[in-house]
Parts: sequence; C-alpha cells; structure tokens
Amino acid sequence: MVIVGGGFGGLAAARALKNAPVEVTLVDRRNFHLFQPLLYQVATGELSPANIASPLRAILRHQKNARVLLGTVEGADLERRCVKLDDRELPYDSLIVAAGARHSYFGNDQWEQFAPGLKTIEDATLIRHRLLFAFEAAERETDPQKRAAWLTFAIIGGGPTGVELAGALSEIAHHTLKHDFRSINPQDATILLVEAAEHPLAMYSQKLADAACASLEKLNVTIRRKSKVTDINAGGLTVECAGQSEFLAAKTVVWAAGVAASPLGKQLAEQTGATTDRAGRLVVNQDFSLPGHPEVFAIGDLASYTPSGAEHPLPGLAPVALQSGRYVGRLIARRLRDGSPTTGGASGQFEYRDRGSMAVIGRYAAIAKTGFGEFSGITAWLLWVLIHLREITQFRNRLLVLLQWVYAFVARDRSARLITNVLRSESQGE
Amino acid sequence: MVIVGGGFGGLAAARALKNAPVEVTLVDRRNFHLFQPLLYQVATGELSPANIASPLRAILRHQKNARVLLGTVEGADLERRCVKLDDRELPYDSLIVAAGARHSYFGNDQWEQFAPGLKTIEDATLIRHRLLFAFEAAERETDPQKRAAWLTFAIIGGGPTGVELAGALSEIAHHTLKHDFRSINPQDATILLVEAAEHPLAMYSQKLADAACASLEKLNVTIRRKSKVTDINAGGLTVECAGQSEFLAAKTVVWAAGVAASPLGKQLAEQTGATTDRAGRLVVNQDFSLPGHPEVFAIGDLASYTPSGAEHPLPGLAPVALQSGRYVGRLIARRLRDGSPTTGGASGQFEYRDRGSMAVIGRYAAIAKTGFGEFSGITAWLLWVLIHLREITQFRNRLLVLLQWVYAFVARDRSARLITNVLRSESQGE
Repeated sequence: MVIVGGGFGGLAAARALKNAPVEVTLVDRRNFHLFQPLLYQVATGELSPANIASPLRAILRHQKNARVLLGTVEGADLERRCVKLDDRELPYDSLIVAAGARHSYFGNDQWEQFAPGLKTIEDATLIRHRLLFAFEAAERETDPQKRAAWLTFAIIGGGPTGVELAGALSEIAHHTLKHDFRSINPQDATILLVEAAEHPLAMYSQKLADAACASLEKLNVTIRRKSKVTDINAGGLTVECAGQSEFLAAKTVVWAAGVAASPLGKQLAEQTGATTDRAGRLVVNQDFSLPGHPEVFAIGDLASYTPSGAEHPLPGLAPVALQSGRYVGRLIARRLRDGSPTTGGASGQFEYRDRGSMAVIGRYAAIAKTGFGEFSGITAWLLWVLIHLREITQFRNRLLVLLQWVYAFVARDRSARLITNVLRSESQGE
Repeated sequence: MVIVGGGFGGLAAARALKNAPVEVTLVDRRNFHLFQPLLYQVATGELSPANIASPLRAILRHQKNARVLLGTVEGADLERRCVKLDDRELPYDSLIVAAGARHSYFGNDQWEQFAPGLKTIEDATLIRHRLLFAFEAAERETDPQKRAAWLTFAIIGGGPTGVELAGALSEIAHHTLKHDFRSINPQDATILLVEAAEHPLAMYSQKLADAACASLEKLNVTIRRKSKVTDINAGGLTVECAGQSEFLAAKTVVWAAGVAASPLGKQLAEQTGATTDRAGRLVVNQDFSLPGHPEVFAIGDLASYTPSGAEHPLPGLAPVALQSGRYVGRLIARRLRDGSPTTGGASGQFEYRDRGSMAVIGRYAAIAKTGFGEFSGITAWLLWVLIHLREITQFRNRLLVLLQWVYAFVARDRSARLITNVLRSESQGE
C-alpha cells in the first residue's frame, strides 16, 4: 500500500500498520517529518530547522514493513490503482493521501512575493531572513519615512500562527535586538496584526481571545480588527476597514491568513465525484474513504470530515491529522486481518478526541482550551511548553529545544539569527 | 575607521580597538561571524548552521565604539580614502581589509556546478543536501551501474577539509544511515579522496600524514594519490595518474582543493602597486600595511605575509587571521594614542605564535601538531574536541555543539539531515 505525505497524518497511518501483513511505501517530497506547530520559532530565530525536523527514515528505521521514497506525487490513477510519481508509477492495493495544505492567497497569488506564508522550512528561513534584514535595512536608511516603513511589520491573519508570530516579533524588537543597533532603536518597531474578523483567534472563546489581545497589546502589538486586505505590494498593504481604504507602509509582510489543500484533492475529486470545500479539501466518508473507492482514503488537512451529528467539519489541526491517520491505518490492518481488502467488517466509528488547542503569545502569556477548562496567562504558557516538548518526535530534538528555550528565556537571546542567501534577498528587500 | 569582513581577522581587529578613541565600522555581507573550522560538520548533518554562526551585532553589542553594517563592498578608493558599498561610500582614516578567500577552480569555473566547495553556510547546506540526496537517488535507482555512481562520493583535495569530509562521510554511510534504506546498503558507498600530491595532508609531517591515511583507510576511504583532476561533469570526474587518464563515475563530487583571495585583493594591488601571489593574496609589509599606504591593511586569507627571516608566507589558517587582526587593531590604537594617524612609533614587530594545527578523521582518530609535539589517535582527537569547543564564540553555541557531539557520538546519529530546497536540487541531482 502507498501513503502520500509524511506529516502527522501519513506518519501516524504508517506507524499504525507496523504489525500488519503489508508493504507500506511512504512517499514524500521531503526526507523529513516537520513539527509544524513550532515553525514560527524557526521563522523568528529561536530554533534551527533541524530542531523541528526528524528524518522520515530515522523515524521508520525499525519498522521493517515500511519504506520511504523521496519523490513528488503528480497524481493517482484510481482505475489502474497506481500513484504517479515524477519518473515512475507505484501500484497500490490501499492508498492513503495525506498531502496536506499550503497557504492560499484567495486568488491573489501575486501577493506571495511580498507576503510569504509559513508552511515549510524554506518559508521559515525566508521569513526569518526578511524580518532580520528589515532591521538591517532600517539601520542603513537615513530617510525617516523609509526607515519607518522598514521598521513596520504587518502580519496578516489573526489565527494562532499570526498571534504567535506577532508575539515573537515583539520579543525580538524589544529585547533580543535591544542593544544591537547604533542608528535605530529596534523598540521603535511597529508590529501590526491585521485581522478581517472582529477578533483574532475566533476559534477560541471570547474570554480567551480577549486575554490574548490584552497580552498582545501589552507587547506593543497593534491589532487592526475588521480590516480586510485588498492589496499588497513592495511598499506595504492596503486594508479596508468600515468602508474606508487605507494604505499601511510596511516593507515586511507575512501571510498567516488562509490555507488551501494540496492540488491532489481536486484531482481525486474529479476521479471519484467527491465534493471539495472552499479550501479544496475532499469531503470524505465516515471512514475517510472516497465515494465509490473504499480502498482510497484522504486524511489530515486534505480531508473535510464532519463527524455524524456534528455541524461543522473538524479543524485543520495536527491532532486531527494524527488521529485520522491512526484510525485509517488500523482500519486497513483490520481489513487485511479479516481478509477483505476493501470493506471493513467491524470497522468501528471514528471518534475525534479533542484534547484542546493552544497558542503562545509571549513570556508567561498563552491561551489554552482543554478538556479540563480554559486557561490563560502563566498556566496556559507552562501547559504549552510541556505539551509541545512532549510531542516533538525525537528525544534528541526534545533536549535541544528545551535547552534553547531555557537559554532564550533566561538570556532573552535567539542565536539562530542568520540571514542566509543574502544576495537573493537583498534584491527582494528593496 | 572601516573594517571589511567579519571573519576571524576583522573581528579580532574590531575587538582590539575596543578602548581606542575611534569609531569602528565593520562591514560584512553577512550578519554573522562563521566558525569555519566546523563548517564540514554542517555539510555532514552533525550540526545546524546556527550552531557555528554568531550574529556580529551580538558579538559587538557592548562595544560602544563599533557599529556593524550589512553590505557588499565593491571596492575602495585609496586616494579619496573611502570604501565603496553597493549604494553608498564610507570614508575612513584607517582601513583594514579582511575579506578572506573563496574556493578556486584554477581557471575551471565550469566545475563549480558539479563540485561545490565549502566556504559558506550556503555551500554547507548545498553539500549536505547533495550527499543525502545521493543515497535517496540510489534507493530509487534500479540500474546497478547508475546506482553505483550515486553511491560513489569523490572529495577532491587532501587538505584538512577534504580529510575531515571523507571521514564524516564514512561515518554517515557505515553508521548513521545503516538501517535507513530498503533497496540499497549505504555501506556499499565508495568514498574517494583525490589528492594531486604524493600524500594528503602535506602540511603535516610524514608520520602524522601516514597515521591519518591509515585511519582513513580503516574507515573505508579510498585515497587516490598523485591524481590530478582534469575534468568534472555531471557523471563524474577524470583524473590523470602516472600519465594515464581515468574516468571515475561519481554523481557527488565536493571540491576541497584550492582557494583564491577575494577580488578586492587584485583591486588594491592595482591601486598600490602591491604584488599578489598565485592565489590572489596581497603581499603586505611587515606591519600588514600596503606599499605607500600606511593607513591601509590587509589581513587574514587576503594577505600573504612572510615574517622577516622566514622562507614561506604564513598559511591561511584561522589563528593567523586572528593574530594578524589583533596586531593591526593594536597598532592602530597605539597610533591614535600617539597622535600620529599614519606612522607607528613603537609599533613592535608582529610575531606569529604557532599553536599548531589539527584535523579530525573520525571517532578517536585525529592528528595534531602542537608546540608540545605531534599526536595522533585518541589524544589528538580529545585535544581537537577541547580546543574547538573552547574557540566557538558564544557560550550557548558551545553548549549546543557539545550536546550534539555527545549525542552523535553515543547514538551514532546526526539529526541535521535535512534535504531542503528539494525542487532545485532534484533538477541539479540528475
């Protein structure tokens, strides 16, 4: 069988098939599993890429029935039951597609060059690079207006990623770089969090969202509510708020506003007649299979799964991907055991266990909604630290991340502040 | 005054001027100081780039008379006493040029695409990427001959960098990746160390070089002596040995054979009438100044300095750069104190303190020549570990590097095994 994608979903599925009598081939474009929830810390220079990435081969090293193949999946032929790679075809009996999502500009792809999103290691190093380069450019600039534009950072989208980026950026400006410059004061930086809705963090309760906003404002982050972005260019962005259009001069813009499923979703929809939602996610059956294809499954960010009786589909979060991957892996294992390759006998219903979600804002400041209740402030912050450390895949990385967090916390320093690929970005910078 | 370059030389000069009554501007294309002696460990996935890089601003944070400017120096006008950046000019009263060296292909620049060198962070991640991708490509390849070419790694140049790369690559093939693949056995990899001279490590005594070669051979590195590279292409390299030409099929080739000084050297030579040596290094006066320009100094890898009475110029090593930088910094400080901006009164002769040099080959295997004698094996290896740890600039990095070394040693694992920028390299790979 074939699994496309080595994220939380694909990896959980592979692991759930550990003792099943089947050859598992996991295909990914990358040779590593990425712990995406900490990607913003790479973008803000607290961690190195390797700290949140674990080689897929190392993870599956001892699972003898699993092999990893580095390759780009271009599509699947569900009739002939094979996955098309760039240079070959892989036949399968069961297929799990866990190809995830990328950020989406809602039809304005030309914005990407000015406002990169944060989904991959390359995205993170590009953003890190732009954030740091902006301070360097401001130090060189003598015109006060241009300097102010270099010192203005706009983060579009008030979800967890946007909030976490804004908080970390404030820490950089107010503490990490405090004594580093001679012509500018990094504390003069303006950090804008641009949110189209009435409040950032709409997926949380009003109480938690308010606590988060209060923390952000204490960190000198300016929250622009009900502000819809209508244009982005090299000089800044245009927002529409209460019918009024306004241009905000900002040389550094980060996109944390929306995602769209992998194009594989659309391809599979065309072959199966499945519907896709607005974000391109495949509406799947109750066992994550596709209509008419009980041997093909879509999980994680590629799937739109509405539990029976629920009103809304499950959100695009790591735990959903992980649990759906594990469920489908076990389902396939059970089918193999029962000798029925396509239909599950006692398949059991998928039940999502919502252990809650959280976002960190700064030192001692976070929000968490859990099964035990809602928390903000230092309790949520400690919870966040513990849970994220526990979930990082490799023991070694856990140790390194802990050490770097402790150091960053005590010294208010971030050592992964490298501007690499300078030539490329200098031309991008201007 | 202006210092061009934030390597060992430039940084040492800036620090030596700490208490001098002068404004120091340090210009670099990068925002970080790079600990080059450990760059090969980034290339082989043991360390992350941030572990061996320290932000220049952080290093000079508390030196109030120093400022850092991120910029590319395009030249200097010694008549008008100004340094030309890409977008402005910087006037100076004293100038220290410490722009270093890049690898050189001796007139065969077309080889660079097939055989990258190892001087920058980008070089290191590119090489890491190619090394790891080669194993991935071999796993995918079914043709035995092509697979063998993917599993053949050629390192050109038997200096310390080449030897260290070969040793680390052997560790990767024989231990790190041991259980990671299903179609290939990474231990089948062939590692070639191609040296034009009779022995690798010619700068060491015969005894030490022999010990190093024995260690390499124990690690299954094949040493090709007296082999001159005459061509490199996408499929491999052609070497000439004892009048015979031979093609070696190797999809991964690394260049560790030669360096050339920054083009700034040639520019300064034209303006001052200074001579340059074969590698483009400026032949400097006994105080590192240029002929007719007592206010302009060249240090580090950009300078060819022959101590009075010596036969050969000093080698291009970190300690030479560091000591020459410190010497020139102190010289300028003394001139400022004495009120004479161009001529030093009691300037004192530069004396290079040769504390020795070393190269590490593998576990417990290294060679070291020091003031106390020559060492090989475990003694040299321990010495290498201690000295390199001590010299890393930031305390935090020292801790992180130590932790990662201990982990890599005990678990024989390397976690920074990321193949990033996949699309670019896949096209490069084939």
